[in-house]
Amino acid sequence: MKVGVFDSGVGGLTVLRAIKEKFPNLDLYYLGDTARVPYGSKSPETVVRYSLDCAEFLSERSVDVLVVACNTASSYALDVLRNTLPIPVVGVVEPGVKKALSVTKGKVGVIGTSATIRSGAYQRKLRDAGVEVLSRACPLFVPLVEEGLVEGDIAERVVKLYLEEFREGKVDTLILGCTHYPLLKDTIQKFLGNVNVVDSSDAVAEELSLLVEDEGSGKVELFFTDMSQNLNRLIELILGRKLEPEIVSEWVHRA
Amino acid sequence: MKVGVFDSGVGGLTVLRAIKEKFPNLDLYYLGDTARVPYGSKSPETVVRYSLDCAEFLSERSVDVLVVACNTASSYALDVLRNTLPIPVVGVVEPGVKKALSVTKGKVGVIGTSATIRSGAYQRKLRDAGVEVLSRACPLFVPLVEEGLVEGDIAERVVKLYLEEFREGKVDTLILGCTHYPLLKDTIQKFLGNVNVVDSSDAVAEELSLLVEDEGSGKVELFFTDMSQNLNRLIELILGRKLEPEIVSEWVHRA
Repeated sequence: MKVGVFDSGVGGLTVLRAIKEKFPNLDLYYLGDTARVPYGSKSPETVVRYSLDCAEFLSERSVDVLVVACNTASSYALDVLRNTLPIPVVGVVEPGVKKALSVTKGKVGVIGTSATIRSGAYQRKLRDAGVEVLSRACPLFVPLVEEGLVEGDIAERVVKLYLEEFREGKVDTLILGCTHYPLLKDTIQKFLGNVNVVDSSDAVAEELSLLVEDEGSGKVELFFTDMSQNLNRLIELILGRKLEPEIVSEWVHRA
Repeated sequence: MKVGVFDSGVGGLTVLRAIKEKFPNLDLYYLGDTARVPYGSKSPETVVRYSLDCAEFLSERSVDVLVVACNTASSYALDVLRNTLPIPVVGVVEPGVKKALSVTKGKVGVIGTSATIRSGAYQRKLRDAGVEVLSRACPLFVPLVEEGLVEGDIAERVVKLYLEEFREGKVDTLILGCTHYPLLKDTIQKFLGNVNVVDSSDAVAEELSLLVEDEGSGKVELFFTDMSQNLNRLIELILGRKLEPEIVSEWVHRA
C-alpha cells in the first residue's frame, strides 16, 4: 500500500520516521513544501490553498491514505481535504489529543505555531473531552530548531519565556503541537519537570493501524519544492540516514 | 512619477518610509510577498522566480522605477530584473556598500540572511573596493524582530551569539544587510560600542535622486500576498501611521 505524507517543510519527517518504524513495508511518499515554508504565520485561506496543492501532488502518486504531518494544515485544512479526496485523510491533531487524554489527570497544555493556536483546533477537542486547557503560540521555537539551538543558554531562555506559565501544577500534560518541537523535547522536559510531554508522531502511526496493512516494497521517496540550505543535513538528522530528495520546484509554479 | 517597491514581507517598509520622507510627492506602490516569506532561507532559483513575479505585478502599475527593498532578492535577482525590465532597477546592496565605504577606515562587517551572505554579493563589492571584510548570517534576527523581541535579555544573547566575532577592533563599520535589522539597531550598537552601524534605507532614497523628480499625487498603496497575523501592527510600527493594505492572494496563484 502507498501512503502520502506532507508538511510545510522538514518537521513532518518526524512523523514519516514513526510510520516507517511501525510499517517498514509500506511505500511512503513525502512532500515538504520548502518553497513556501512556514505555514504557521500565514492566513487560513493560504494554508488551505497550499494544502490542496500538496494533496494533489501526492494524489497523482495514487496513494491509499494521506497523512497531513503539519499541525497548521491539520488545524485548518483537514475538513476541506476530507471533502475533496476519495481516500482517508489522517491529521496530527486528533491523534495528539487522544494520546494526551490517555495520560492526563485533567489539565492539558498545548503549544504550537501562531496559526495552529489561533485556529483553536486542539483547544476545542480537549475542552469537548472535559479537561482544562492552557495554550500558547511559540513562534521562536521553529527558527531555534532550524538554527540547531535545541539546548543551551538561548534555548533555555526562550523555553522559559513561553512556558513559565505552564509550571507549578498549571498543567500535568503538554502537547507539542508542531512537528518541529520534538527536537526541543529534552529542554522543555527539563524546564517543566514532572509533566507528561506528548508528541503526536507515534500517535499518528498508531492511527494508521486502522487504515493500512504493512505491505508494499518498503520504498521511501522524498520530494521538496525547494532545495533549502540545510535540507540534506536535516533529513539525515531526523531520519538517521542519507536519502536523496527530489526537488520539484516547477510543480509549485504549476499548481 | 511612480515608484514600485517590493520585499519578501514587511521589512522593506523601512525603505519605503525613507523614500516617502525624501520624496513626499511620488506615487508609491509597495508589494510584500507575505504568502511566500521568507526568501532568505530559499534557493537562488526560487528567489529569482519570486522576484520576477513581484516585478511583473508592479510593472502592471506602470511604475517608472523599481526598488528591490529586499537584500536576498537584491543579491540574487538584480541582474535578471535589469535584463528583463525596460525601467531602472535599484537594489539595496549597492547603496549600502557605497554608504559603508564612505565611513569605514578599512574593516567592514556585513550581516544578513543565510541566502544573502551565501550569495557573496556584499563581500565581493566590498573586497573590490579594497577593504577587509568579515561576514556572518544571523538567521534568528528576523524571527526575533517579528516576535517583537528587539531588546532585552534574549535579544542581547542572540546578538552576542552572532556578533561576538565582530568586536574588539575586528571591524570599524557594520552593514545591516537585511531590512528587518534596523529594528535591532540599538541592541546591536550597544553590544558593538564604537562601530559605525549602517543601514541602507536612507542610501537607497539617496540613490533615487539620480532617477526621479519629486512629482506626483503623493499616494501610497500597499499590497500584500497574504494577510499575515501582525500585518497591520507592523505597518503602523514601521510607517508611523495606519494604512489599509490590499491583500492580493489570488495573484500569487496566478503568477
